[in-house]
Amino acid sequence: MKTAEIFAIGDELLIGRTLETNAHRLAQGLYARGMRLRQVRVIPDEAPAIRRCLEECTADLAITTGGLGATRDDCTRQTLAQWLGVTLVQHPEALARMQTYYARRNRPLNPISEQMSFVPQGAEVLLSDVGAAPGLRIDRPAGGVLFVLPGVPWEVDHLAERYLWPWLEAHGTGGHVEQRVLRTVGAPESKLAALLAPLEDRLPPDLKLAYNPSLSSLDLRLVLHTAREDWPLRQPQYEALWAELQERVGPYIYGTGDDRLEGVLGDQLATRGLRIALAESCTGGALAARLVSVAGASAWVAGGVVAYSNELKMELLDVPQELLREHGAVSEPVARAMAEGVRQRLGADLGLSTTGIAGPDGGTPTKPVGTVWMACAGAEGTMARHHLFERDRSRNIERSVVAALDLLRLYLTGVRPE
Amino acid sequence: MKTAEIFAIGDELLIGRTLETNAHRLAQGLYARGMRLRQVRVIPDEAPAIRRCLEECTADLAITTGGLGATRDDCTRQTLAQWLGVTLVQHPEALARMQTYYARRNRPLNPISEQMSFVPQGAEVLLSDVGAAPGLRIDRPAGGVLFVLPGVPWEVDHLAERYLWPWLEAHGTGGHVEQRVLRTVGAPESKLAALLAPLEDRLPPDLKLAYNPSLSSLDLRLVLHTAREDWPLRQPQYEALWAELQERVGPYIYGTGDDRLEGVLGDQLATRGLRIALAESCTGGALAARLVSVAGASAWVAGGVVAYSNELKMELLDVPQELLREHGAVSEPVARAMAEGVRQRLGADLGLSTTGIAGPDGGTPTKPVGTVWMACAGAEGTMARHHLFERDRSRNIERSVVAALDLLRLYLTGVRPE
Repeated sequence: MKTAEIFAIGDELLIGRTLETNAHRLAQGLYARGMRLRQVRVIPDEAPAIRRCLEECTADLAITTGGLGATRDDCTRQTLAQWLGVTLVQHPEALARMQTYYARRNRPLNPISEQMSFVPQGAEVLLSDVGAAPGLRIDRPAGGVLFVLPGVPWEVDHLAERYLWPWLEAHGTGGHVEQRVLRTVGAPESKLAALLAPLEDRLPPDLKLAYNPSLSSLDLRLVLHTAREDWPLRQPQYEALWAELQERVGPYIYGTGDDRLEGVLGDQLATRGLRIALAESCTGGALAARLVSVAGASAWVAGGVVAYSNELKMELLDVPQELLREHGAVSEPVARAMAEGVRQRLGADLGLSTTGIAGPDGGTPTKPVGTVWMACAGAEGTMARHHLFERDRSRNIERSVVAALDLLRLYLTGVRPE
Repeated sequence: MKTAEIFAIGDELLIGRTLETNAHRLAQGLYARGMRLRQVRVIPDEAPAIRRCLEECTADLAITTGGLGATRDDCTRQTLAQWLGVTLVQHPEALARMQTYYARRNRPLNPISEQMSFVPQGAEVLLSDVGAAPGLRIDRPAGGVLFVLPGVPWEVDHLAERYLWPWLEAHGTGGHVEQRVLRTVGAPESKLAALLAPLEDRLPPDLKLAYNPSLSSLDLRLVLHTAREDWPLRQPQYEALWAELQERVGPYIYGTGDDRLEGVLGDQLATRGLRIALAESCTGGALAARLVSVAGASAWVAGGVVAYSNELKMELLDVPQELLREHGAVSEPVARAMAEGVRQRLGADLGLSTTGIAGPDGGTPTKPVGTVWMACAGAEGTMARHHLFERDRSRNIERSVVAALDLLRLYLTGVRPE
């Protein structure tokens, strides 16, 4: 199995200013390709520290991130040139890209920024579509390869997708990792663990089932590490367990791999030719924003209304005043009226609403912070759900968004109020 | 200035399953106490890797995290004992704590878990109230101190608060760090770099100005590392540079330290008793959600409308049909009409709008993907701005949100259309 090391360069990482996340995503990519990441070193923007890492590295693949910007504290390019014993030369295409990049933003390419187009002689230049600084690929003098990437996370991901992963796949990594991810929503970890106990009891030692919970998804990852030549022999066993896994947690599955809940729902709405409208109180636009984050959402999102006050709930969503007076804004009848009202007013096929107390203030003994009502209205009726989340505002908003999407998912799969 | 290194131990960190965050929080604590963190190494649960880090470390303070659990892969305790040439001995108080800890959770303390109460002879035991595994403090044979902490984030924080920080403060860190952060929006890095070049040319070598760009902010960090006794002597110079820094980038500053743009704007709106309404097309609710993420936002956010289609722009925001026909939905007149319409319809003091092409599809030669118009309407007129962002949908939405907040900031500071 081939080995890798990552060197994350940046003073901001060592003073706790910026959380280092690039190594994490690169680690996932290396792992999925059967490479063994032996070490990550986080080091300052200082030539001696960078040189030391490069000189000590014996891994097949070395990756640096950071220190490629135009400001004075960045010194990765210069350090590499000194280490390699070459000069920095201007790369015409990198310069042309930077000129376009800056022109598009109506910004001048000043001499400071232009320094980013200078690269160590002999390095392969990895041009970026999403950032000014190009990356580099360098054959290390003592053997092995070095990929030099920027520090900005999406620039790292872009250059990894475009250059690093294809290069690794072309040059072979030795191992085989079969890794599939099942994405679930609506069931807590303990519930899935109970459903999966009979399967987990029978897993062979080199086959692992991992639970990866987050606010928006509970992912189940089935992983097998094997030598490349052994995979065909192991595949039937893996496939059988993968099928059993899906069968056991069936109703909670919304997708696999990198599927996003909002993307899956968007596909379903688009396929059926349905348009949805959002009526939000406690989520304040976050529910609409989540759906709109999906490319092409304009085909199936009609629009939305953020109605904090009772007046706007009445005026923009036709919520009857007596419901608000009798039950309060955070209540099942109001959640239902909001969903039905936005569906009607915006001429949509479906209406989805949230109303709750996100906190930190506003709670009462009967409706504590974290109380949320939501409803989904459509041609086949209206379905409402109640949740009691926690005291943290941002997590309450996030959980409410996910719960509302799950309610829509259930509605679309044909679940109806009892 | 005293130095530190952190060794984060755990296979799960190197396969991308768990994002390493302990080093980040420890780095903040070290930095705030004037210690210089020279390096973070993330290594597997393997004795040779752990030993190598310990042997190579010359920092005053070494910290390990992780590998103290009861499972087979955890080997930090054993490796330390071998490295120190001592045996593992059971610590009675650690055992008693663990018995209590497990009894409270109705779980048996089996022999595997009991291993966590064995520590290298001579180590000081750091008892935890929030986890089963104790930490350790060890005097390193070659000089300096070693703190051995678990891997679970809240256990790390608990033991750091209880043992690590008090120990450092008692033993002196020797240094003083003066660090202030200026948060800016609206100017690219190259522009600030040009404005600040005269200041940067005069910076003494131990005073650093760092640029920390993100999608939502460009932070400038002025940092002085000095001996504790030298700070009073250096303070006047630092204060002068801090003042000059603020003067040079004045119009782009929205805050300092941990200020968030939406929070600063919310405070300004609340103080002036103003309420804002949002009319969003391309940002799809993300602008409202950003403002609503601030606790207490219901006092100064009236509400919002997400109006994707021309029909909804007309119906909910009173955008005149002829404007849409003549100029298209993504245009200055429509952005203005949306901001004015939402202000009017929701009875707010201010209206803020976005209309653009977030992508990836929908661009035209004259209005490419990334084209965004936004407007801010208030009692003193309407101000509009045009931006051309990139091809990535989620970043376009995020940048549009930040740009709209910046437009609101300018409006509130009294900037008016020319």
